[in-house]
Amino acid sequence: MKIKDELENLGKSALEASRLLANLSSSAKDALLKDMAAALLASASQILKANKKDISFAKGKGLKESFIERLSLNEKRLEEMAESLLAIAKLNDPVGEVIKVWRRPNGLWINKVRVPIGVIAIIYESRPNVTSDCIGLCFKSGNSVILKGGSEALNSNLAIFKVLQGSFLRQGIPCGAISMVATKDRRSVEELLKLNDHIDLVIPRGGEDLIRRVAEISRIPVIKHYKGICHVYVDEWADLNMAEEVCFNAKVQRPGVCNAMESMLVHKDVAVRFLPGMIKKFKQAGVEIRGCAMTQKIAKGTKKAREQDYHTEYLGLVLSVKVVGSFTEAVRHINHYGSHHSDSIITEDYSSALEFTRAVDSACVYVNASTRFTDGNQFGMGAEIGISTDKLHARGPMALEELTTYKYIVFGSGQIRK
Amino acid sequence: MKIKDELENLGKSALEASRLLANLSSSAKDALLKDMAAALLASASQILKANKKDISFAKGKGLKESFIERLSLNEKRLEEMAESLLAIAKLNDPVGEVIKVWRRPNGLWINKVRVPIGVIAIIYESRPNVTSDCIGLCFKSGNSVILKGGSEALNSNLAIFKVLQGSFLRQGIPCGAISMVATKDRRSVEELLKLNDHIDLVIPRGGEDLIRRVAEISRIPVIKHYKGICHVYVDEWADLNMAEEVCFNAKVQRPGVCNAMESMLVHKDVAVRFLPGMIKKFKQAGVEIRGCAMTQKIAKGTKKAREQDYHTEYLGLVLSVKVVGSFTEAVRHINHYGSHHSDSIITEDYSSALEFTRAVDSACVYVNASTRFTDGNQFGMGAEIGISTDKLHARGPMALEELTTYKYIVFGSGQIRK
Repeated sequence: MKIKDELENLGKSALEASRLLANLSSSAKDALLKDMAAALLASASQILKANKKDISFAKGKGLKESFIERLSLNEKRLEEMAESLLAIAKLNDPVGEVIKVWRRPNGLWINKVRVPIGVIAIIYESRPNVTSDCIGLCFKSGNSVILKGGSEALNSNLAIFKVLQGSFLRQGIPCGAISMVATKDRRSVEELLKLNDHIDLVIPRGGEDLIRRVAEISRIPVIKHYKGICHVYVDEWADLNMAEEVCFNAKVQRPGVCNAMESMLVHKDVAVRFLPGMIKKFKQAGVEIRGCAMTQKIAKGTKKAREQDYHTEYLGLVLSVKVVGSFTEAVRHINHYGSHHSDSIITEDYSSALEFTRAVDSACVYVNASTRFTDGNQFGMGAEIGISTDKLHARGPMALEELTTYKYIVFGSGQIRK
Repeated sequence: MKIKDELENLGKSALEASRLLANLSSSAKDALLKDMAAALLASASQILKANKKDISFAKGKGLKESFIERLSLNEKRLEEMAESLLAIAKLNDPVGEVIKVWRRPNGLWINKVRVPIGVIAIIYESRPNVTSDCIGLCFKSGNSVILKGGSEALNSNLAIFKVLQGSFLRQGIPCGAISMVATKDRRSVEELLKLNDHIDLVIPRGGEDLIRRVAEISRIPVIKHYKGICHVYVDEWADLNMAEEVCFNAKVQRPGVCNAMESMLVHKDVAVRFLPGMIKKFKQAGVEIRGCAMTQKIAKGTKKAREQDYHTEYLGLVLSVKVVGSFTEAVRHINHYGSHHSDSIITEDYSSALEFTRAVDSACVYVNASTRFTDGNQFGMGAEIGISTDKLHARGPMALEELTTYKYIVFGSGQIRK
């Protein structure tokens, strides 16, 4: 069978199964999530065996150490995956929540009710744990899911998938509820993204290249973030000790993630007091600083920041620094160079704090806190399927609720329109 | 200047203005809406003069009477347009609404706050009143709007636009807040739909062809409905008098709109009692019936429905009728042939009613009421910018709230991530 037809069949089964999933009880879903967690642990040895194949193949191809680290599974990681499924079982079921309800003068009773989106495709790269996380989140929110993982993790993903599929079959859930595009054929992604009659939403997870490619060719709506160019702005009224702590945390605690600070803005009136100590601390932690002319003046020996630096997501121990003449300049810089992901102001001034939250057009805007909190778990959502810098449907951290839409259920007693 | 550059400038101004609109007070917005309403009435003669030009041009081109009817303005229609702006002024401002708010164990205070989407493009066909409606709705919800109307209504649209633009300039709102692509050059739509860096959302309003073309070429997210194939299912437990009234209303009261019934399903156990009288009533009202074999048996002389009929939005006095063997068959038929817009069950059976609302995957699902209520005004939203059969972002009637997104505003006191 051609890959196109295979995928269309996959889409059809997923759509069919989604009708059943939409009305599955929370207790049935939670029982299955617990069964999945147990099955993962019980099948640890076969999953790790499959993972070893992927790792030796990746090593043979000479892939980077950091890549192999992301690809690798062990007992502890499998336990975390199982725990994650148990945590999802404990979360509130978003399906069926009545978002709003009102009665019209003619007696019509209008209910805006949360329902699953339907069929969700996840396209991801090397981490095999994404497989079980996404199956857990999509299932709990009542959606069918179609997974397409990176080809380097194919054996691991398939092993995890088969174990979880076993749980679904034991509970009599139609097999379309979860499916995996288990091929290294690159055309499969293109063909998958054409199935707009069967798939309602695509979430790409991975590097910017992957996400751009998906967004470009997809005929299905995509929710995504390309990158995180997050700022901390140290206001003229900042508590400079707090500023130092927060900026250091935002940059250094885990520099390789999208909510880490990539650019630090400092008001000119505090630059001389703040920058020397701050930059010294950064340098001690191995952070390379690229500064504006004023920064270079204040902290001798600092490398010059070019225009391009302010557009760059380093994902590592590099930081661009700019001294700004005013609050307004800071806000303009963030809205222009930022990625509308997460930005923070450090200030003790009430009006600056409030104005910053209004004027900065980002998914998450912070006052006096590290940008590193933009995360489903840190927000208290219990899980995360991704972060969106899109404005439509979902913005910021996405978890169960963001995997739902709504329908209007209207109860009448024979009303007709005059 | 090339059309591409012109549109890019338009997009830039719109984006710039949107930052200001996002934080405009409700009272400033409402005052401007009232000023617009007054300006429309004060400039009636010049608008009607421009409209006459469009009409005589349309007549010269031999366009249909129904087209010219939609295009035509008069004193009364202008009054309605002004009233619509005043009604929008009276609606609650959705911007700034705190959707959810919670505190995390570390003291972070997370606010999920409603904010405007940003820049919205509306692509529409012949009705000039859409111009003022869309300006009113986008402005009240804090969005910049870029309008591209049908070329046959260009003079009318431009006259209305210029009058409303006068109100904006008098209040000192940047001119990018509202703009119009005032050209008959068809490439302008294609170029507009490429501005994904400046425009956040496109809403096409018009026939299915226009909407399909927009959805196909747009690089900007589109919210849309292609068509409304709405069903009423007369259950075996229906109150047949109610069924007759509701079905008649759903088909005949205004057959040319998307929430009118196009297909009627009848349970086999009531078909013999229900269909003869119902079909007679339809025929008296000039409705052409296309029925399944069973319908033809019961109501002699009924035309045969082909498979394609169940896929067709007639937008006129034609109705497909099918006798179904069971509730389940009815639901399957609706989910398969319907457009996921609005579908209704007529029943006195509690379980059928509830199961129908769960199993039918449509934006609006009714029990014992006409599908004709799917409408922003009828839902009590006070206005309507369109109806969505998409599942993402907005579903069903769309008004002010659906023209917003949200941001997270997080207040801290120096929190860093451990």
